[in-house]
Amino acid sequence: MDSKALQAFFSPKTVAVIGASASSGKVGNAVVANMVASGFKGRLYPVNPKGGTILGLPAVRSVEELPGGIDLAIFAVPRDIVLPAFETLAERGLKSAIVISAGFREAGREGHVLERKLALLAHNHGIALLGPNSLGMMNASHGVNASFSASRPNAGAVAFCSQSGALCQAILDWAADEGFGFSKFISLGNKAVLNETSLLPHLGSDQSSKVIVGYMENIDGGEEFVRTAREVSRKKPVIMLKAGSTNAGAKAASSHTGAIAGSDDACAAAFRQSGIVRAPDLESLFLLAEAFATLPLPRGPNVAVLSNAGGPGILAADACERTSLHMARLSPETVQRLQGCLPPYASVYNPVDIIGDAGAERYRKSLEAVLDDPLTHAVLLLIAPTAMVEIEATATAIAQVAHRSPKPVLTCLLGRAHGSVGREILRQAGLPCYAFPEPALRSIEAMYAYSQWRQKPVPVYEPPRRELAQARTLVELAEKQGRVELADFEARALVSAYGVRVPLTHLARCGAEAIGFARSIGGPVALKAYSPQMSHRRDLGAVALNLEGDDAVRLAFSRLTAHLGRISPETPITGCLVQAMAPADSVEAVVSMRRDEQFGPLLMFGLGGIHTEILHDVSHHLTPLSRDEAFGMIRSIRSYLLLKGVGGHPAANLRALEDVLLALAAMAQDFPQVFEAELNPVLVNHEGALVAEARFTFRT
Amino acid sequence: MDSKALQAFFSPKTVAVIGASASSGKVGNAVVANMVASGFKGRLYPVNPKGGTILGLPAVRSVEELPGGIDLAIFAVPRDIVLPAFETLAERGLKSAIVISAGFREAGREGHVLERKLALLAHNHGIALLGPNSLGMMNASHGVNASFSASRPNAGAVAFCSQSGALCQAILDWAADEGFGFSKFISLGNKAVLNETSLLPHLGSDQSSKVIVGYMENIDGGEEFVRTAREVSRKKPVIMLKAGSTNAGAKAASSHTGAIAGSDDACAAAFRQSGIVRAPDLESLFLLAEAFATLPLPRGPNVAVLSNAGGPGILAADACERTSLHMARLSPETVQRLQGCLPPYASVYNPVDIIGDAGAERYRKSLEAVLDDPLTHAVLLLIAPTAMVEIEATATAIAQVAHRSPKPVLTCLLGRAHGSVGREILRQAGLPCYAFPEPALRSIEAMYAYSQWRQKPVPVYEPPRRELAQARTLVELAEKQGRVELADFEARALVSAYGVRVPLTHLARCGAEAIGFARSIGGPVALKAYSPQMSHRRDLGAVALNLEGDDAVRLAFSRLTAHLGRISPETPITGCLVQAMAPADSVEAVVSMRRDEQFGPLLMFGLGGIHTEILHDVSHHLTPLSRDEAFGMIRSIRSYLLLKGVGGHPAANLRALEDVLLALAAMAQDFPQVFEAELNPVLVNHEGALVAEARFTFRT
Repeated sequence: MDSKALQAFFSPKTVAVIGASASSGKVGNAVVANMVASGFKGRLYPVNPKGGTILGLPAVRSVEELPGGIDLAIFAVPRDIVLPAFETLAERGLKSAIVISAGFREAGREGHVLERKLALLAHNHGIALLGPNSLGMMNASHGVNASFSASRPNAGAVAFCSQSGALCQAILDWAADEGFGFSKFISLGNKAVLNETSLLPHLGSDQSSKVIVGYMENIDGGEEFVRTAREVSRKKPVIMLKAGSTNAGAKAASSHTGAIAGSDDACAAAFRQSGIVRAPDLESLFLLAEAFATLPLPRGPNVAVLSNAGGPGILAADACERTSLHMARLSPETVQRLQGCLPPYASVYNPVDIIGDAGAERYRKSLEAVLDDPLTHAVLLLIAPTAMVEIEATATAIAQVAHRSPKPVLTCLLGRAHGSVGREILRQAGLPCYAFPEPALRSIEAMYAYSQWRQKPVPVYEPPRRELAQARTLVELAEKQGRVELADFEARALVSAYGVRVPLTHLARCGAEAIGFARSIGGPVALKAYSPQMSHRRDLGAVALNLEGDDAVRLAFSRLTAHLGRISPETPITGCLVQAMAPADSVEAVVSMRRDEQFGPLLMFGLGGIHTEILHDVSHHLTPLSRDEAFGMIRSIRSYLLLKGVGGHPAANLRALEDVLLALAAMAQDFPQVFEAELNPVLVNHEGALVAEARFTFRT
Repeated sequence: MDSKALQAFFSPKTVAVIGASASSGKVGNAVVANMVASGFKGRLYPVNPKGGTILGLPAVRSVEELPGGIDLAIFAVPRDIVLPAFETLAERGLKSAIVISAGFREAGREGHVLERKLALLAHNHGIALLGPNSLGMMNASHGVNASFSASRPNAGAVAFCSQSGALCQAILDWAADEGFGFSKFISLGNKAVLNETSLLPHLGSDQSSKVIVGYMENIDGGEEFVRTAREVSRKKPVIMLKAGSTNAGAKAASSHTGAIAGSDDACAAAFRQSGIVRAPDLESLFLLAEAFATLPLPRGPNVAVLSNAGGPGILAADACERTSLHMARLSPETVQRLQGCLPPYASVYNPVDIIGDAGAERYRKSLEAVLDDPLTHAVLLLIAPTAMVEIEATATAIAQVAHRSPKPVLTCLLGRAHGSVGREILRQAGLPCYAFPEPALRSIEAMYAYSQWRQKPVPVYEPPRRELAQARTLVELAEKQGRVELADFEARALVSAYGVRVPLTHLARCGAEAIGFARSIGGPVALKAYSPQMSHRRDLGAVALNLEGDDAVRLAFSRLTAHLGRISPETPITGCLVQAMAPADSVEAVVSMRRDEQFGPLLMFGLGGIHTEILHDVSHHLTPLSRDEAFGMIRSIRSYLLLKGVGGHPAANLRALEDVLLALAAMAQDFPQVFEAELNPVLVNHEGALVAEARFTFRT
């Protein structure tokens, strides 16, 4: 999106409201009223065929009468009037638009056609178009409230964009309740033109936005979204709630937005790789927005808990242990300092129990003591409603101490009677205040994870050395022949062209030939029935392993070919492949790739046997892939320890395994026509990795 | 606990307040004031050495002047005065007591001694003693508020007991806020006499309590607790939050209560087996208490979601899919009915989107339609804050329809502006109202799980047939000889005595003997270095598998004995065990038992290899064990599919595996001196199960 158009969109000097109305209760009235109330400093043109004045402003009778080059036109007219008016303004240099009108894609085929026309017009004229079916937009720093929302939020540090109008309204309600403000507030509607990807760079550079928060149901152009989000996340936190992340939810989302749902594995990988903080649910979205907007990031995982009651302290320790954070181990100096300011029966170890009769001063001193501990990175302070709580003085003391510290201080006020006063003081001071310890700890966890992500070096994507010409010849031949997948030999040759080892393989057409090859290989061999049209050999029972001696090989050859002839008579069998057996100490891995509808090539890694198929112990990554990221994929499966060497086995050569992942990532990028690929099994031992079988399928 | 004493405790006719005071602000004043305010109908005796009147009641100067046989004495005096006064009253027929005074076990050694004396006195006189260090007790149905709490909760259907006074106060605050009431409210304090186990049967039979809710940090007499809770849970839901369920939390709890923390595996098994609804955190405890107290139990897992906005509906579908519930598939009749009452662009499939302009009537009709669907078991109704919401009329309509249905209807009011009015109407109608869809679905999930548990047949515990005399001889001999564990042969013999198969095993003292045994067994054999003092053979590398032929056996014999002599020279090696190899198609399982400090024998089941030790894919159960429960243990591991037969393997004989679990459960009960036992590996195939090695360790 053209940055000038976005500039005009967020900070317009001239705004026209098409469908402005003098009758309160109408959308076209609410928009004008909101623009006026927001203190908009530019020229505002209500457009209404009846003329007259609207909220004190002279109405323009038609779009033709508007001056040329309007910065922002807001459409609050019936659907069928939108397009002609938009066309006229587009011809006359319109820079940006908000279409509040509904009845477009969300309302069926006819609306969908109109929406496509609108989008095309906007694209051709470089107009930044929000909606249709949008609640509108607000920009606190420019005095713009181009929406028909009844709520008028405070100015604040959160840029919010949402695909759901209902959630826009809900978050405005919630924010009003929590005394929380927004820098930008954008209801994306149907996302005909402006969407998350086009808005992110602007919000990323926007000085008034400290955090970007979003709700989305589908993503257009997932690969570009990931690239954009990755850059913006380096500057400031991007927090997203993705609806439709389960099967049931995705089905509901598809029927709601009409968009095809990609897989959640891909979406999860996209968010992880681009540093997006993923909110698991709506409540978390709210709480994370508040925490990220108000608190400094923790520099480490160690949390100290301060409480005036034992039980809540224990619950907080439980909650901490269930996250990836740790209960801080307080230094001897801190323990001594706490002993100096706490009564004898207090617990000076973490969780620190400052006892039910703790007043403000005791809270202040113990909070200072734990904040000064260099190995404590965040503090969760609990206030249980005992009779002795001095809630006002305590909240004030906490706010003072917290503001002097570069570490995040989170408070949890249990119970509500005492709470409301204290909550108000803490919120005025810009400190989030929780009703329970668990969400507070989850906020710290997300903030720490984000700070770790931001400290990681920018990944370096270097494609591995490969014989690209040779690889192209292989793939193009198969395509030319109209095949849906590479033949067995071709697949191994392709893997080989990317520098990955494959086993020596011969195609034997009769038992005698098989014996000859087996002898030449030496040691135990595997026989695999071969047909150019066959895949899923193992599932068909067409594999014989660990064959030693001529008799075994001959017998296996006739058994396999007979078996296959019986169960799959339509498959022409060319013979059997003869391969050396894998080394006994090797671990079987699976490396695969599938193109996601939204996010492109999605790599998967797991161990063979039950690990991948039954236990679903796998990791995912979208291409491109760096060596560090390949290692991350390997390390993040639960069964990783099997590769590290357990029970006397030597550790597997992880670098060789990384090479296999990097090779497949490069293949996926080199050959967009390859729709799915599976390297299975990949045999890894301490020496290296060997791809025993590979399949490459084209898009049909 | 004597039921007469408990009767006197909860519904006293005569109550004495020791330490009653005329000065407001004092605990002894608050207690008298609360008793008076609660409308107590019996005789109330304030006791104060100064005499006079206290809140209009004549004060008694000393406990000696009180009439004999007081039903309930409340102690609000300094610690050192409690014991002599208690002694006097105990001699004079006191039936029950609440010790509010603190300074006992929680305050160190001296207090602990005093508390033990108090408990002993109470036991000897059959006095139901609550505390010390208790906030007090309330019984709404008898007009008793024997506490010093400033909050006076409404009467309701929830019986609440808590080990933490701070949480008592917090839940009172919360309840006041939610318009929520209690039948009984019990602050357990130090649990010197009355605890969860002694109170549960009474609360279970209490007509005024529909739900029992508790917070606990430690459990005394875990085995009796499980037996009691199991019976009470059949009558009404018992919802518990256990603090200290992680390592960090348990450490904090131990230092707070001074009690030894049992393992959370044992506690989780105890809760599961006794049908206790476990609240994962404080917020859930509150929400579950409300849901169980107000809603009917769902009779199945299918949830219908009704929403006036697409986004929230999708989020609810996501949340549903993340629980064990299902999104209901609406019947064609329901779909047709919905089509009849919804506008054309509405989605009539689940989640049902009744569109943003839905008023009260549309909510009513669509709610009726989905509630009438026989395959829908619960309804979650979402109200997003659109401009068209008729919140009062809608809430009223929902309440009317919900009350006529035997199915639970949960509502979620997103945003707060519209919410507060609707929330109030729904709460007045006794319907819980959520701010977000996720906790609502977790409540339905917990209610459905509980209803399933309650429908299960009562487990039948039949010990397996066993040679008890023979088993006793084995165990007693080892004990007599002062050994810490059974020798290898004894362990196998013990397993055998419980009807479980063990492999034919010979002890070879030299290579030649080993060859002889191997020949007599036939086929491949395993050799295991043997010393009566050795355990963890595998870890020591003292096992050789799959030996075929004389040479292999001879070589292995000398290698194993030499190896062991080298790495563990102090272990006297008797020779090697020669065993038949396990059948190639067998799966390795691990069955073990460990006595938990709080809950007694805890069985564990998992598969061998990485499944148990690395992936921790195991299940637990406290003894006793029924055959159904044994099957439940087997079925509940993630890798269960491996036993069902995958990749061409036949299914394992699960009944034989159940027999092994039942045998170990019986051993644990027959021999309390056995502290730990491990059957590992247990080899299971389609024919049966074989315990290849077993270890039994005594308490040292």
